[in-house]
Amino acid sequence: MISNINIPPPNHIKLLDNQQGWIGLVNHMGDESTITNAARVSFGKMKDTFDEKDEHLLSFLIKNKHLTPLEHVTFTFIVHCPLFVRSQWHRHRTWSFNEISRRYTEVDIEIYRPNFYRQQSTDNKQASIDKCVYNEESIKDIANTCMSECLFAYEKLIAAGVCREQARGILPQNLMTTYWASVDLRNLLHFIDLRDDDHAQKEIREYAVAMKELVRPFVPHVIKYLEEHKIEG
Amino acid sequence: MISNINIPPPNHIKLLDNQQGWIGLVNHMGDESTITNAARVSFGKMKDTFDEKDEHLLSFLIKNKHLTPLEHVTFTFIVHCPLFVRSQWHRHRTWSFNEISRRYTEVDIEIYRPNFYRQQSTDNKQASIDKCVYNEESIKDIANTCMSECLFAYEKLIAAGVCREQARGILPQNLMTTYWASVDLRNLLHFIDLRDDDHAQKEIREYAVAMKELVRPFVPHVIKYLEEHKIEG
Amino acid sequence: MISNINIPPPNHIKLLDNQQGWIGLVNHMGDESTITNAARVSFGKMKDTFDEKDEHLLSFLIKNKHLTPLEHVTFTFIVHCPLFVRSQWHRHRTWSFNEISRRYTEVDIEIYRPNFYRQQSTDNKQASIDKCVYNEESIKDIANTCMSECLFAYEKLIAAGVCREQARGILPQNLMTTYWASVDLRNLLHFIDLRDDDHAQKEIREYAVAMKELVRPFVPHVIKYLEEHKIEG
Amino acid sequence: MISNINIPPPNHIKLLDNQQGWIGLVNHMGDESTITNAARVSFGKMKDTFDEKDEHLLSFLIKNKHLTPLEHVTFTFIVHCPLFVRSQWHRHRTWSFNEISRRYTEVDIEIYRPNFYRQQSTDNKQASIDKCVYNEESIKDIANTCMSECLFAYEKLIAAGVCREQARGILPQNLMTTYWASVDLRNLLHFIDLRDDDHAQKEIREYAVAMKELVRPFVPHVIKYLEEHKIEG
Repeated sequence: MISNINIPPPNHIKLLDNQQGWIGLVNHMGDESTITNAARVSFGKMKDTFDEKDEHLLSFLIKNKHLTPLEHVTFTFIVHCPLFVRSQWHRHRTWSFNEISRRYTEVDIEIYRPNFYRQQSTDNKQASIDKCVYNEESIKDIANTCMSECLFAYEKLIAAGVCREQARGILPQNLMTTYWASVDLRNLLHFIDLRDDDHAQKEIREYAVAMKELVRPFVPHVIKYLEEHKIEG
Repeated sequence: MISNINIPPPNHIKLLDNQQGWIGLVNHMGDESTITNAARVSFGKMKDTFDEKDEHLLSFLIKNKHLTPLEHVTFTFIVHCPLFVRSQWHRHRTWSFNEISRRYTEVDIEIYRPNFYRQQSTDNKQASIDKCVYNEESIKDIANTCMSECLFAYEKLIAAGVCREQARGILPQNLMTTYWASVDLRNLLHFIDLRDDDHAQKEIREYAVAMKELVRPFVPHVIKYLEEHKIEG
Repeated sequence: MISNINIPPPNHIKLLDNQQGWIGLVNHMGDESTITNAARVSFGKMKDTFDEKDEHLLSFLIKNKHLTPLEHVTFTFIVHCPLFVRSQWHRHRTWSFNEISRRYTEVDIEIYRPNFYRQQSTDNKQASIDKCVYNEESIKDIANTCMSECLFAYEKLIAAGVCREQARGILPQNLMTTYWASVDLRNLLHFIDLRDDDHAQKEIREYAVAMKELVRPFVPHVIKYLEEHKIEG
Repeated sequence: MISNINIPPPNHIKLLDNQQGWIGLVNHMGDESTITNAARVSFGKMKDTFDEKDEHLLSFLIKNKHLTPLEHVTFTFIVHCPLFVRSQWHRHRTWSFNEISRRYTEVDIEIYRPNFYRQQSTDNKQASIDKCVYNEESIKDIANTCMSECLFAYEKLIAAGVCREQARGILPQNLMTTYWASVDLRNLLHFIDLRDDDHAQKEIREYAVAMKELVRPFVPHVIKYLEEHKIEG
């Protein structure tokens, strides 16, 4: 049966202030005993259980940044997010991506319309403060009207026979996109370290936090370690 | 002296139908004798000249895809292009990028306004044909009006104190951006192979072609080889 | 239960002329419908079956080198091989490795003793011809005696309290080693393309061929494609 | 003129207890103003001088691990070291390497013969203590005799027509090798962080320390920062 990529898979978490975004887990390889066994290769051993000693080994590995054993655990997510989140995500060069192509299809065009506009921070030029702008309703009107007009103009261009690859140029960065994203656990931790952070934009941070929940069943002690320590690696 | 990143460096090429885009070369390491000497490490030799034999060695290396010696030659470009070109470029995970941040600054907002809208191809869903749409002037009006309204709405949001990181969401993918991009010659050839190609979008193809001209003075036989053969690597 | 890493896992293939080497598959993520579904993300579709159309899509992807969808399929192997094979393998920078450390342990020292010494090729400086050297028995005696003396000297150094990290310096490159190796299918195909090839050394080629058999149950049409075409990617 | 790769370039540092090793710098791209300008791309600025403010920006970038601007500075080294050092080095997957091939040539075979054998540490299984083993002269005799015999046996195999690719299997891991190695500054710092460290083997640590001296003229404040802080990134 053929289905639509823009419908979330069973195991997913809804995101963004208005729940337009989501992220789902579709595949994974390995668990915490994979990690400790990969680490034990150094001294020529393997173990078929996971006990308290392994828990300590796991903490030791992360704490001392012996992170290569985490590369044998991999995950595939499906992400539905605005283009500006996607562009931040694609800067992580150790991930594998396959994304919906707006050169190829004009179906399911969906634009993110935030419920809530934050104020510009005055002491940090690249940050916001988690407080509504004063005249929020009129701000939302301005933004939403503008985006509706973009969509309307896009449809006119398409109807006139303009190629999709050029017509998309007038669509806003709030356009929603969908992609598969695979990564190993080492590089996932690096992503979470950078993006589940005060300096990251709120929107991508929500995705980082959600990934912790999605992978927790497979690597519970790793996620617990992250919650108790800031790793940097 | 502090200057503006959005002004092209001395050695650059203007691009796109209306010359809004450009790419410049700002730094490089190595030349063709770097490549042949790196290759000769295999057999324990080095040479301080570059002659016809080296030219043959160079062709041999590329033809047989012994491409690691090309990794010792590196280039840094400054790119000024629309966001949709940037997003295709950032999918190449072997490059190093630093880009202007629209979380940080709202100065020099510039939007790409094509002079020429191509028709959608009917036999290739993701391609265009190099022929104007029928009613081009009215199409340009629709697109340009829409983009001007986006810019106007963006300015209102900024004036109302909305954080830059959210306000940019309503700016179109035709927004121009600027970034530094470093790459080694092996991965540059791979980029050119994929993007200076009929299947690539015309806009990014122009940048691929321009890079061949910018690096030609340093690796003339490599570029000549590319022009005479399709490499695949 | 703690076991020895130098004992092959259930699913393995024995290798090298005297069967001292082996490679086993211990973990994997994804199959061929993972690949076709990752490819279909481009046009916004997903499918829960795999039929003849998908088989064609798969061939199309490999043939046209649209290889990113293959990155969502991953494998973990355990490899037992001589150091000189390991060193060729480690040149592939897209793999994840964890190897037994001879700084850490001196147990299970095992040296590869070929049954068969090939002649130096005279027309290709870096190749051999698959023909015994003339006086093979005496050649084997010379090599085996030398390697036994190395091992004996190593044991004396260890007994005298020399650190393992220095003592190992006198052990030959025929020393057997063991490592975990994870890779995605795209990069596995690249490895097979380079190493299951006339220009590769016979020993590493055996490992490349064995990996085709180990992954065949999960990606049968991909392997069939490889057998019928030389891919280059 | 053709020269021998095993002769150090003009700008080099001799290494290892007996000075058999060396590392030289042969090429580089960029300096510290490259780094600060790459960082300033974020806010749309460029500067043609390097002053105290830039020094602070540089420290800020490293301290806060905003390390991408360091990727626009690249270096090419020539390394002459024992195989066991090479194998540790090749685990760093972000470098570009071209190495002398012992499949291709049997000239200039040179074996590292340490002057000094350290004791095995008793409290750290993978470390040594910087103290001579008791009966050092006899230890050196055992090791050197063994290695001379390996070399002698190797020559017999070659003389008998055995292919180089197999014959090298009996040469010890103390065999000296030579390779070109290119890396960007970000990944060089990562290498130095891991290898100029108490947990690293003394031999590779000497190469890490030497690289700091070789690059210091081009990035003096970066190296000064490393000496005053432990970076982790």
